[in-house]
Amino acid sequence: MKKKIKCTLAISLDGYIADEYGGYDWISGDGNPVNDTKSKWDFQAFMQDIDVVVMGRNCYDLGMHKDFSDKEVIVITSRELDDDSVIAIKEDISSKLLEISETKSIYIFGGGVIVSQLKDIIDEYAIGIVPIILGKGIPLFHQDENRVKLNLKEIMCEEGIVVLTYARKEE
Amino acid sequence: MKKKIKCTLAISLDGYIADEYGGYDWISGDGNPVNDTKSKWDFQAFMQDIDVVVMGRNCYDLGMHKDFSDKEVIVITSRELDDDSVIAIKEDISSKLLEISETKSIYIFGGGVIVSQLKDIIDEYAIGIVPIILGKGIPLFHQDENRVKLNLKEIMCEEGIVVLTYARKEE
Repeated sequence: MKKKIKCTLAISLDGYIADEYGGYDWISGDGNPVNDTKSKWDFQAFMQDIDVVVMGRNCYDLGMHKDFSDKEVIVITSRELDDDSVIAIKEDISSKLLEISETKSIYIFGGGVIVSQLKDIIDEYAIGIVPIILGKGIPLFHQDENRVKLNLKEIMCEEGIVVLTYARKEE
Repeated sequence: MKKKIKCTLAISLDGYIADEYGGYDWISGDGNPVNDTKSKWDFQAFMQDIDVVVMGRNCYDLGMHKDFSDKEVIVITSRELDDDSVIAIKEDISSKLLEISETKSIYIFGGGVIVSQLKDIIDEYAIGIVPIILGKGIPLFHQDENRVKLNLKEIMCEEGIVVLTYARKEE
């Protein structure tokens, strides 16, 4: 049975994944537990089910692959990458990931451009909605054309950050 | 005591309030009540507390003011408006609305440009998150520069549409 391809993202209420300078200092809750759900978003538990982590070259260059030393890491890059600890892929990315997902679960770590490119093969989204309006910034998706209908799977909340998990709706 | 200035909006998961043609055909739930909350978004109840409805000229020209015949309706317009049933205002919009809100509660009906312009005086937001990624469309805010920090007030859900209500956080 095919395994899932998943992604996680934090967005502002107006749909930005980073401020206009790429910054993330705005990602925090409102400090108020009044709406907290019993079930909380648990990244460790999420990662337990993941076999392969996919990231873009920028994330790799920032050393983020080191956070996943117990997983297989795939770096999407058009440039040469001389590092035996990761697998570099250049082209046919969606078809290669779909093939891998036949036996392994995949976490599309990011950044946003990668998530945007792979939107059509992502099975599950966990989106944390941060209680802030940024007004401007880098949007979650900004070059695609097709819609993706979703089914809401679960609502979690911790100190004003609402985490919504969705599965792609099969048409 | 000052009354509240409120707005309601439906947005896609990626933060659009309309598709690229201004269309709203995508605003529907996923048909699954599994995550429904006991308390549901109730527009009738919301309107009971509202004294004044504010809309842009486009909404007026589409006849939307007729839906609020039991309320005072303010139309924001730079053009002449010959209609005794509504109040037209042209300038100093924020300060005039703030003055009115000293005694009356205000609903910023829309459209998006009006909400965006009045962001700094809006006290409460009710945002319905529709289970769809549009990929592109008209963003909720697209010309502002300042951030607005929010406190999450309530989470409601009905058939996959998650309604989050927020109050502006006083710094």
